[in-house]
Amino acid sequence: MRIVPKSVQRLIDEFGRLPGIGPKSAQRLTFYLLRGSKQKADELGNAILDLKSNIKICSTCSNLAESDPCIICGDERRDHSTIMVVEEPLDILAFEKTGKFEGVYHVLHGVISPVEGIGPDDLYIKQLLDRLHGGDVGEVIIATNINVEGEATAMYLQKLIGPLDVRVTRIAHGLPVGSDIEYADEITLTKALENRGDY
Amino acid sequence: MRIVPKSVQRLIDEFGRLPGIGPKSAQRLTFYLLRGSKQKADELGNAILDLKSNIKICSTCSNLAESDPCIICGDERRDHSTIMVVEEPLDILAFEKTGKFEGVYHVLHGVISPVEGIGPDDLYIKQLLDRLHGGDVGEVIIATNINVEGEATAMYLQKLIGPLDVRVTRIAHGLPVGSDIEYADEITLTKALENRGDY
Repeated sequence: MRIVPKSVQRLIDEFGRLPGIGPKSAQRLTFYLLRGSKQKADELGNAILDLKSNIKICSTCSNLAESDPCIICGDERRDHSTIMVVEEPLDILAFEKTGKFEGVYHVLHGVISPVEGIGPDDLYIKQLLDRLHGGDVGEVIIATNINVEGEATAMYLQKLIGPLDVRVTRIAHGLPVGSDIEYADEITLTKALENRGDY
Repeated sequence: MRIVPKSVQRLIDEFGRLPGIGPKSAQRLTFYLLRGSKQKADELGNAILDLKSNIKICSTCSNLAESDPCIICGDERRDHSTIMVVEEPLDILAFEKTGKFEGVYHVLHGVISPVEGIGPDDLYIKQLLDRLHGGDVGEVIIATNINVEGEATAMYLQKLIGPLDVRVTRIAHGLPVGSDIEYADEITLTKALENRGDY
């Protein structure tokens, strides 16, 4: 016997598949949308359907963008000789909020993780090396997360870039071990940037 | 300068409007969908767009349903002389999971709340009285939540139904004061149902 209408159960199931949303939260969200206007629910639904439209990967830094090159790579006022390597697009947002970084970025879209079967070839590492071979880059700041995978990826990149004539730095361990960059406050991130050390 | 693409920011904003989802969670959910396949995101988006299609309000009990009468009101094996009054459709689900209630339901779709400007006329109370005037109902179990608004609504209903030849009961205060019915475990709900007392 189905007590909950099919379309309602379907949305509860879909919400429940999202990370951090349990069955009870999924029910709550669904009934919240049910109580609201159709227009309100449609706005959310359409925002999800439109999410991937007009999204490009910047051919320089691999960030998600509406244009290619992205707004940061296309900005002449930024220091294109300093590249900060981050795991995810959200990490760029976190650093941009500090207002203390004038360089450009490179997004790996993940970290090396043997457990999850993610190797160097699954990340945008080749694209990073291509940028370095141009000879115009003086420093690469590795800003992967301060956890096992982030550190391992940083080590891997350092060994790869070491032979090239490029300074490789790592953001300072001002961040507590095990934390995620996108959750850090702006002062901690600023300190981590200022205290960066040579490998 | 827009660092986050428009369609991404739009979904972050939309997720952030949902109850219990903060700005960081909204970002996480958005980038989770971005990383996944378009098909996966579309399934969620379409589930939201289809949410209100084929949903009716049962003309007997006011529950959300695919048919009218709903699956419970249309079930001949249930005891139609006992009506349990609940605030929300989710409360029916909670009681059905106990398997201990054979009667039928009535959904108020809210509680009387002067603070939020919700009066008796905004709830499905008139429809409840219409059912009682038929003369076939022997008992009304009031199962609104055990909090200020729920108790006030229960009192209001008891006074309204009192003059009619119908027994009015209230689920037992086995539930901790201030709690929500939909979060209670099944044993607590069963006890609350068994220990119901006359007004």
